[in-house]
Amino acid sequence: MDIKKLKVFNKMIEEYKPCKFEKTDSSFITTQAYQVTLNNGLKLKREKIIKGNKDGSAVIIVPYINNNVLLVIEPRVFTKLGVGVGFPAGYIEKGEDPYEAALRELKEETGLVPSSLTLVDSFYQDEGCSGAYNHIFLAHDCKKAYEQDLDSDEYIKYMEFTFDEVLELEKEGYISGANSKLALTHAKVYKNEI
Amino acid sequence: MDIKKLKVFNKMIEEYKPCKFEKTDSSFITTQAYQVTLNNGLKLKREKIIKGNKDGSAVIIVPYINNNVLLVIEPRVFTKLGVGVGFPAGYIEKGEDPYEAALRELKEETGLVPSSLTLVDSFYQDEGCSGAYNHIFLAHDCKKAYEQDLDSDEYIKYMEFTFDEVLELEKEGYISGANSKLALTHAKVYKNEI
Repeated sequence: MDIKKLKVFNKMIEEYKPCKFEKTDSSFITTQAYQVTLNNGLKLKREKIIKGNKDGSAVIIVPYINNNVLLVIEPRVFTKLGVGVGFPAGYIEKGEDPYEAALRELKEETGLVPSSLTLVDSFYQDEGCSGAYNHIFLAHDCKKAYEQDLDSDEYIKYMEFTFDEVLELEKEGYISGANSKLALTHAKVYKNEI
Repeated sequence: MDIKKLKVFNKMIEEYKPCKFEKTDSSFITTQAYQVTLNNGLKLKREKIIKGNKDGSAVIIVPYINNNVLLVIEPRVFTKLGVGVGFPAGYIEKGEDPYEAALRELKEETGLVPSSLTLVDSFYQDEGCSGAYNHIFLAHDCKKAYEQDLDSDEYIKYMEFTFDEVLELEKEGYISGANSKLALTHAKVYKNEI
């Protein structure tokens, strides 16, 4: 990556690093515990993570724009760096179709609209203790059509990178979330196909 | 996969499917909520998932044995199938090194001991609301050296598959957890290298 671009990128990272943690009350994540009986009669106890009264299923979108890939930079306060770099993503709302959710999240986080959307994979985020079932989309030929439209305590910057730069950021450990890493494996397959 | 092997596999799946859910109390998963201040002065609230007083970091192990790959089958009661198929995995204990955790989990879940262990990737399971940082290992030239040694409400069957059969199981949607899917991408890279 050229020095100037790297400087812009590093400034975003520095600004989004957490510097102070104060304990407060939980209101978003709750749990449900069950005694479960299996078909073979065995019993086990399992606990399920609930996010905002939903199972926490999410969409992850790989946005292609001007022959580049767009990545988002946002606070990830419980990680070592404190900031996450990855693909636009967000929770599916109640009653929402994964395609609709992908278009909505891409629009809200980046203002982009794709000419087409391809579902490339679906997977459980944390299958032992969650029903969250996530979907990865490739968003082709994106155009900037809207302003970013974020929730009140959501902070997201975005930046275009060449595919080689994205690989560089993965290698350097900036792209380190399961969702973005899995999405990137699909972007690699797609890169080899075209 | 041949019919006889498929029959054994399907019997395991059927036996491990959940048939009854009764609500009980949570004791394993808890949350911590924080008001966080960023370097740029902005404030946001984030909640952190805690599993048994730890951050829930885990190891995932791809065990190679007799030119095959070993997979585990276990109840995953919050998924659509109700049963998960994937690689041996488990939480890192307090003070434990990821390598030690990988050897211990492989031994407990399958009784296998590898001749060597290679760390191929590390990633955050759910970076928005967890500090869980997982590690993927390839376990080479495994030998059966111990009996399976499971916790009281842990139920795990294991079975050897050719690499093509593993790919078949992924394609059919049996391998659907983020951890196993990411581990499989590394097993594919390794397969192409040897």
